Amino acid sequence: MTAAPSPEPVRPDRLDVRAVALGGGHGLAASLSALRHVVRDLTAVVTVADNGGSSGRLRHEFGALPPGDLRMALAALCGDDEWGQTWARVLQHRFRSEGEMHDHAVGNLLIVALWELLGGHVQGLDWVGRLLGAQGRVLPMAITPIDIAADVEGLDPADPTATVRVRGQVEVASTDGRVDAVVLEPHDPPACPEALAAIAVADWVVLGPGSWFTSVIPHLLVPDLRTALTSTRARVAVTLNLEPQTGETDGFTPEQHLEVLSAHAPDLRVDVVLADRRSVDDEAGLRHAAKALGAELVVADVAAGDGTPRHDPDKLADAYAQVMKQA
Amino acid sequence: MTAAPSPEPVRPDRLDVRAVALGGGHGLAASLSALRHVVRDLTAVVTVADNGGSSGRLRHEFGALPPGDLRMALAALCGDDEWGQTWARVLQHRFRSEGEMHDHAVGNLLIVALWELLGGHVQGLDWVGRLLGAQGRVLPMAITPIDIAADVEGLDPADPTATVRVRGQVEVASTDGRVDAVVLEPHDPPACPEALAAIAVADWVVLGPGSWFTSVIPHLLVPDLRTALTSTRARVAVTLNLEPQTGETDGFTPEQHLEVLSAHAPDLRVDVVLADRRSVDDEAGLRHAAKALGAELVVADVAAGDGTPRHDPDKLADAYAQVMKQA
Repeated sequence: MTAAPSPEPVRPDRLDVRAVALGGGHGLAASLSALRHVVRDLTAVVTVADNGGSSGRLRHEFGALPPGDLRMALAALCGDDEWGQTWARVLQHRFRSEGEMHDHAVGNLLIVALWELLGGHVQGLDWVGRLLGAQGRVLPMAITPIDIAADVEGLDPADPTATVRVRGQVEVASTDGRVDAVVLEPHDPPACPEALAAIAVADWVVLGPGSWFTSVIPHLLVPDLRTALTSTRARVAVTLNLEPQTGETDGFTPEQHLEVLSAHAPDLRVDVVLADRRSVDDEAGLRHAAKALGAELVVADVAAGDGTPRHDPDKLADAYAQVMKQA
Repeated sequence: MTAAPSPEPVRPDRLDVRAVALGGGHGLAASLSALRHVVRDLTAVVTVADNGGSSGRLRHEFGALPPGDLRMALAALCGDDEWGQTWARVLQHRFRSEGEMHDHAVGNLLIVALWELLGGHVQGLDWVGRLLGAQGRVLPMAITPIDIAADVEGLDPADPTATVRVRGQVEVASTDGRVDAVVLEPHDPPACPEALAAIAVADWVVLGPGSWFTSVIPHLLVPDLRTALTSTRARVAVTLNLEPQTGETDGFTPEQHLEVLSAHAPDLRVDVVLADRRSVDDEAGLRHAAKALGAELVVADVAAGDGTPRHDPDKLADAYAQVMKQA
C-alpha cells in the first residue's frame, strides 16, 4: 500500500503511553477525541450490540457486526488535515430521503463492504483507519454480533418490584424501568484477539464515559475480554458520565455508576476514577465508592459547559494527561 | 489536502498528449484502461442517462445524477498500487442480499454522498479520483440527469415500418426493434463546464467504444457538448465496437455505426476510425464510410480474443499510441 496518506506526525508532547479505550457511541468518541492528543499509541475496543437504526438494519440484512459504533470511533480518530476531516464527514454522512437509503450512514455501508470484500473484520477496519489517517486503531469487542438483555424493575404496574427481562440495546437504553443488571446473548461471544493483545500490552485502559449498561459494562461481560481486563498489567481508569442517562441510568448517582460496574465485574481493579467537578454532589461519598474499587478519585473540569452532558475534548485531554503523567 | 495519496509517477513513455474520452459503461472503461497508459493528461466525459439498477434507484430516490457510469470510469483509472486497486474493488463491490441494499454498488453510494456533502458534482468526483489515485479526471456529460428516448421500428406487429418512441436508457438498449434515432429528454441539458474546457484544449478526443445509441451518440446531442466537439482543435478518433449489441444495434455493420453517428451529428469531423481487424468484413466499405466523415481507417488487433466482445486494454493502448504518435 504505497500510496496511502502519510500519517500525521506524532505531537512531541504526546505521552509515551499505550492506551486502550473501551466503550461505544458518543461517550467513546469523546474519550478518543481526547486520548488521541495525549498518548502515542491508542486502540479503541467497541461494543457490537447495536440493534437499531442503520446498524441494526445492516446487521439484520447481512448478519454483519453492527458497524455504527465502530464508524463513530474511527471518525473520532480521523486526521486533523482536510483529507482526514473530509473522509470523516463522508463516513458520518447520513442519507435523508423517503426511500430505502434513508438514515443509512455512509461509513456503515463502507465498513460492511470492506468486511465482505476482505473477509476479516480487523483488516476492513484498518483500511478505513488508513483512509481517515486515523490516529489509532479501532477493534470490535467481539467478532460476532451480540445482544444485550437487561433485568429491569418497575415495568409491571401490578408489581413494581418484579423483574422483567428486556432484550436489545435500543430497548434497554430506552427502558422506562430501572435496570438492575445486564447480560449478553450469547453470553460467551468470541472476543477480538487483537483487542485482547492490545489490552495485554497496554499501559492504561480507559472504561467510559458512555451509556453505562449498554456501552460500558458489556465489555466486562465478554469472558475473554474480562479476563484480559482483570489480568492486564495496565492501570485502569474509569471515566464517569456527566449526568445520568434518561432511560437506562435515570436517577443514578456517580457512586451508583461505580457500584453497578463492580456488581457486574467484582474482580475488576480500578486505579483512577475520573469525574467532572460539577457533576459530583457528594465528593466524599464518591471517593469512598472509588476506594471500594481500589481507585483514587480525580475530580476535574471536563464538561463542555454548553448545557449538554458532553465532555470537552481539550479539557478531557488535559485531565487524561494529568492522570497518566502521574502514574 | 496534504495527506492525499501521492500520484503514481507518469510513465516515461506516455505521450505528451491531452486526451478526452467520451462514452459510458464498459466501453468507456475499456478505452480509459488503455488511454491511461498512453497519454499524459486524460479526462473522461460520461453519460448520465442511466435509469436502471443501482444508478436508477439512486436517481429516483435522490434526484441525483445516475452515478454508475461515473463510478465505472473512475475505477478504470485507479492507481496500479494496492491502495488504488483495493479502493477500486470497494467502489465496484455490489451488495448481495434479500434486503434493501441488494445490488447497490458501494461507489454509487459514496459518489452520491460526496455530492450531497460537497455540493458540486465535479468536486465530489475529484475526491473519489484522489481516493483511487486515479490517473485522469472523470466528469459528467451534463449536470442534470437525462433520459434517452429512441424512435424504434418493428415494434408494432400490425405495421412493421411504424416508428414507436421508446423512453429510457434501459428500454432503448434492450429494445426488440430497430433504433432509427435517439433524442435526449430534456433536449438541451446543461453541459458540464469543465468537460467543455477539457475538450477545448485537448489534442485528441476519443468517442466509443460502447453502447452506440445509449452511451456514445448521446454526447453529440447535448448542444454545448456538440459545439465543443465540432469546434475543438483536437483530432477526433472514433473507436468502433467489436460486434453489434443485442438490442440497440442488432445486425448493424461497422459502416452502419458510422452512418448513424453522422446522421446524429452531420457537422462532426472525424480524423481516425479505429476498428478491430477481425470485426471488419468489408474493409473497403468501412474505409469508404470513414472517409465520408473525413477520417482515415486504422485497422488493428484490439480484441481480447477470449470470445467476448471486449477490447484488450494493452492492445487497445498500443493502437491508440500508434494513432496518436503519428498525428
